[in-house]
Amino acid sequence: MSTFGSIFRVTTYGESHGKSVGCIVDGCPPGLPLVEADIQIQLSRRRPGQSNLTTPRDEKDLVAIQSGTEFGITLGTPIGLMVRNQDQRPHDYSETDLYPRPSHADWTYLQKYGVKASSGGGRASARETIGRVAAGAIAEKYLKLAHGIEFVAFVSSVSSVVMPFIHMEDDRLFPQDFWELLSTIKREDIDKDPVRCPNKEVSERMRERILEAKAANDSVGGTVTCVIRNVPSGIGTKTNYSGGIQGGISNGENIYFRVAFKPPATISQAQNTATYDGVDGVLAARGRHDPCVVPRAVPIVESMAALVIMDALLIQQSRKTAASLLPPISNMPPTMNAMFSHSTEEVKAETST
Amino acid sequence: MSTFGSIFRVTTYGESHGKSVGCIVDGCPPGLPLVEADIQIQLSRRRPGQSNLTTPRDEKDLVAIQSGTEFGITLGTPIGLMVRNQDQRPHDYSETDLYPRPSHADWTYLQKYGVKASSGGGRASARETIGRVAAGAIAEKYLKLAHGIEFVAFVSSVSSVVMPFIHMEDDRLFPQDFWELLSTIKREDIDKDPVRCPNKEVSERMRERILEAKAANDSVGGTVTCVIRNVPSGIGTKTNYSGGIQGGISNGENIYFRVAFKPPATISQAQNTATYDGVDGVLAARGRHDPCVVPRAVPIVESMAALVIMDALLIQQSRKTAASLLPPISNMPPTMNAMFSHSTEEVKAETST
Amino acid sequence: MSTFGSIFRVTTYGESHGKSVGCIVDGCPPGLPLVEADIQIQLSRRRPGQSNLTTPRDEKDLVAIQSGTEFGITLGTPIGLMVRNQDQRPHDYSETDLYPRPSHADWTYLQKYGVKASSGGGRASARETIGRVAAGAIAEKYLKLAHGIEFVAFVSSVSSVVMPFIHMEDDRLFPQDFWELLSTIKREDIDKDPVRCPNKEVSERMRERILEAKAANDSVGGTVTCVIRNVPSGIGTKTNYSGGIQGGISNGENIYFRVAFKPPATISQAQNTATYDGVDGVLAARGRHDPCVVPRAVPIVESMAALVIMDALLIQQSRKTAASLLPPISNMPPTMNAMFSHSTEEVKAETST
Amino acid sequence: MSTFGSIFRVTTYGESHGKSVGCIVDGCPPGLPLVEADIQIQLSRRRPGQSNLTTPRDEKDLVAIQSGTEFGITLGTPIGLMVRNQDQRPHDYSETDLYPRPSHADWTYLQKYGVKASSGGGRASARETIGRVAAGAIAEKYLKLAHGIEFVAFVSSVSSVVMPFIHMEDDRLFPQDFWELLSTIKREDIDKDPVRCPNKEVSERMRERILEAKAANDSVGGTVTCVIRNVPSGIGTKTNYSGGIQGGISNGENIYFRVAFKPPATISQAQNTATYDGVDGVLAARGRHDPCVVPRAVPIVESMAALVIMDALLIQQSRKTAASLLPPISNMPPTMNAMFSHSTEEVKAETST
Repeated sequence: MSTFGSIFRVTTYGESHGKSVGCIVDGCPPGLPLVEADIQIQLSRRRPGQSNLTTPRDEKDLVAIQSGTEFGITLGTPIGLMVRNQDQRPHDYSETDLYPRPSHADWTYLQKYGVKASSGGGRASARETIGRVAAGAIAEKYLKLAHGIEFVAFVSSVSSVVMPFIHMEDDRLFPQDFWELLSTIKREDIDKDPVRCPNKEVSERMRERILEAKAANDSVGGTVTCVIRNVPSGIGTKTNYSGGIQGGISNGENIYFRVAFKPPATISQAQNTATYDGVDGVLAARGRHDPCVVPRAVPIVESMAALVIMDALLIQQSRKTAASLLPPISNMPPTMNAMFSHSTEEVKAETST
Repeated sequence: MSTFGSIFRVTTYGESHGKSVGCIVDGCPPGLPLVEADIQIQLSRRRPGQSNLTTPRDEKDLVAIQSGTEFGITLGTPIGLMVRNQDQRPHDYSETDLYPRPSHADWTYLQKYGVKASSGGGRASARETIGRVAAGAIAEKYLKLAHGIEFVAFVSSVSSVVMPFIHMEDDRLFPQDFWELLSTIKREDIDKDPVRCPNKEVSERMRERILEAKAANDSVGGTVTCVIRNVPSGIGTKTNYSGGIQGGISNGENIYFRVAFKPPATISQAQNTATYDGVDGVLAARGRHDPCVVPRAVPIVESMAALVIMDALLIQQSRKTAASLLPPISNMPPTMNAMFSHSTEEVKAETST
Repeated sequence: MSTFGSIFRVTTYGESHGKSVGCIVDGCPPGLPLVEADIQIQLSRRRPGQSNLTTPRDEKDLVAIQSGTEFGITLGTPIGLMVRNQDQRPHDYSETDLYPRPSHADWTYLQKYGVKASSGGGRASARETIGRVAAGAIAEKYLKLAHGIEFVAFVSSVSSVVMPFIHMEDDRLFPQDFWELLSTIKREDIDKDPVRCPNKEVSERMRERILEAKAANDSVGGTVTCVIRNVPSGIGTKTNYSGGIQGGISNGENIYFRVAFKPPATISQAQNTATYDGVDGVLAARGRHDPCVVPRAVPIVESMAALVIMDALLIQQSRKTAASLLPPISNMPPTMNAMFSHSTEEVKAETST
Repeated sequence: MSTFGSIFRVTTYGESHGKSVGCIVDGCPPGLPLVEADIQIQLSRRRPGQSNLTTPRDEKDLVAIQSGTEFGITLGTPIGLMVRNQDQRPHDYSETDLYPRPSHADWTYLQKYGVKASSGGGRASARETIGRVAAGAIAEKYLKLAHGIEFVAFVSSVSSVVMPFIHMEDDRLFPQDFWELLSTIKREDIDKDPVRCPNKEVSERMRERILEAKAANDSVGGTVTCVIRNVPSGIGTKTNYSGGIQGGISNGENIYFRVAFKPPATISQAQNTATYDGVDGVLAARGRHDPCVVPRAVPIVESMAALVIMDALLIQQSRKTAASLLPPISNMPPTMNAMFSHSTEEVKAETST
């Protein structure tokens, strides 16, 4: 199913071969200033063709708001977002369509649906993430304006090139300067580097590793680390965040987590494999593809985090407001009562400022 | 599916032949005083055996809270509610099990599930409504305490005996005293009458009509009218309420609507029909059954209305709080701006008192 | 929330003033032949400007499939559907924007969202139904191909002009020719009449009634009756269908129901009312509007019915397939066993042909 | 929210201090043989008091089916499951209630709900997992009978004691005997070992590590590895399974994944910390607790995996059945056509056996 969230709900659509990709954002608070530029900034960080480290497919990925705003302000109604697919190349029923790409979802998609898009990965194309990034940008804008919450992600490893400290099992062993990095790092700094890694020396080695893979018609994976700052305590979430969370609920400290991306499955190297019908053969993908996706994955990770936090925060705001509207309880046991009074005041402070 | 609601969510379980019936209420605001007696009052209005107008099946329908409260206060966690089935009579594999009761869901349930409970209607039994009434009582308590909202339902027709004015197509033609009835009627008054109809003269005719059906081993249908008072304006709902609603959104006036109940399908009269296997025969249901369900349906209608309003109100509170946390908009067009400022103040007033 | 359904899920977007309206259909079975023409046929029956009985607003309402198909066949992935808003007139911040139209959702929308579209009704515009009709056309095509299910709706009343028999409380009193009408009526026949009423004599009186309202700058309401033929027995639904249903489950006979539409709120007659700020004044709406919506509502009713049946049928197919994959039960009690064997065979027959 | 799944849906309830814990399973296929013993087997593997490695809290955790079955066969209606809390100790408002346990969810729960259970962890208690394990046992039984799918989990690390090979980044480097272990390991073998680790030598070192922590009034974490065998290809899932999955869809090979559990937060060691009100002090938890949860977590991991697979499989069965009911497509492009015919046959084979 293609819907995320229960109050702030995002439904995406689109494949690489269709007319457009996009999403509907349902449940966005009314009264939020929102124009295309707010969304475009993240889509442009995600789009292909940003440097020689990414795919040469040329897509401007310009977003157009279809509904849900007027005079640049959200109405509270569903926001339709659309990004045209521009650089579609004519489909040629080529031999390569007969081969599922090894380790790509080509084969599993066919098993799931019984029919598959003839080219470009169909729904499994990375273009599906455009809708998520666009919706995430809206969530981010609300969270920044209403709560000062910030999301910053960066590349923390490419293949075996890893930022120091990032793979330690026990985060109490992280040195002080790593905690400071999480507290202070900004997107502007990240974007100055083509790999989007904040460590200059490591970044250079990552760049070399990517270009090496590219030269060999191969691909490499990596990880993205993301920090979320200023999340109020008390936000539930179903995710597996490792820092800033207890019992699945935020504790008010910085939240950080790490996401791994496997090497892209589409490579130009000749591979011994088999057709859909089980006949042995050799697949050498032409097409255009990324030798490494992690630099472009940075805004995707930020956006997915924003969607999760946005939905959890709206649910929590609903819970707090609902509790704050109840009359005070006179006969509550002392310990419970103290706790509850404390919390109610906090609710009032939050909702009346 | 057996779940209602998106924020205040109720999942029911139970058939007439099982150990218990009940529900889980997920999403109840924390800090609400809640003990069994708050729920029992509506279950007792619903239970069988209240008068000679209803089924003699003897169930006390005592509810036990399993979770979600401590010291009589809700914790915000799921509330488990359980009501034991007491008056189960031993099942006897009787001939009558071979016949789907005409106009009952016996046959359609078998078509849907391919297997059916052997007696008492299974999931299609009216006992399924116990979970709804119990959950509705919780919703009612919150809505009363936090917003002063009231739900009052009453019997407005039994078979062809109809309260005056109730069936007019155009409610602008209702006389002033009908509007006053809707504004002032109370449950205490309703409950003084065994039919639960507020019009003495009409009630007496309804009672005669029910006893007449009972004497003939037959059954009759009827309607319940419900009024909801003090609903804030701006509450969306998916229901088809006919009064107090525009564009599916409450306008702040009393909401009222009418629900029809068909005659119970289980009757003791001999009926020419066919077995599940298509063999002609005669069904004469023994068992215990209601000649007319509408007096007992009054708390069911109130509870279903409370569940709908509760969920819609929590969603709306979430929307208003989310909007109120945004900074003021400086460059909003004059007409929009005026509207929004107006509404924001109202939000603050509501959430800070 | 703007999503319908749990397996076949439709999320709509769009207001009258935006760039486009449309929807995403998630969960459509793969392998269904689908081109724009399949959808356009119902949109064209719904579009404004079809006759002198409807609004002169001129919208071609041409649909474009954005995703989810290739070579005219569904892929099983989300289907994006878009219809441009063409005939938008420049907004003029007119005086009339200051008045909520009496009985329109203008005022309640403002209460719900705290901000509202400045013109044309925004999300409350009838243009929101375009997404539903487009999605419903896809559901209809699947249901026709896979099960032979048919949906036919027609106008059964306009103001006080009512087709005979349609308002009887007890449908056992319907004459034989009404049942035959439900069993045989076709869309081609309905569409020959500008009011979309199958009774010539009644239709002529309805047409006169609509033109009379139009001449008086007034509007009238009416009802649409819909029949659904060839629905398999055993389909659950949450709707309040009155015929062909028992215990909320279809019994295999024709299902029919009736939907009422109130008179459109936008009329050109001068009305004494008040502005949003509570100042008394006179509203005389200019704009373009329908004197009566029921002729255009016919495909909307068919589509909503198709969405409900489609989702319920996919859920039921899932249940039957799941049950059919279990090994036979050897120790089942005789009555249950007989029932279940019977049903299992039926499942196999259905899924293997 | 306490509900999992979209077709096979599980809603849990219960805290450690309440009358019972349990769940409602909605959407279970009808016709599945199911008695308490089918569920008890996994609950007994999860229950406390199994050995000197786990908490001495003595709970039999006997499950009682409340609804949804008759004569030991599922009806397709909601299955209510209940497990009484037996070994509740009287609550004493002790000093320790004033301290949130460091790294426990005590504090975050209070922030989320504004009120908290006074003892035993409330909803954050591990007893919440009873409902999940009970529901998972039902899913497992269906999946085994209908598809031969098997779930086997085992302990793969305790603190720094790790099974060989289990922490390698690239699973292509796993030796052949590890793959064989995943393909052949059985629960009977796992349960012979008190730690539930299949490697005798490693298990002994794990046992020593746990007892060492216990002696020091401390606790340790660990990991559980789970293999799922015989999953049909084509099952979508939102989870982050690392093996047997491409593009989020199963490829038909064994699926395996690893879950980490942090050390339990409740320990008897004295800890310098602060009360809820921010006053410094020393917390020395009495109570009963586990020095290491991973041996008891084995059935929890299996059950959560079963719930995910069950829901995904029912959705996929629905998709395949829906596609198989469409008539053949005559004008499909050759490559697509070949794929689709192929898949359709497979669907028929699967649904008719």
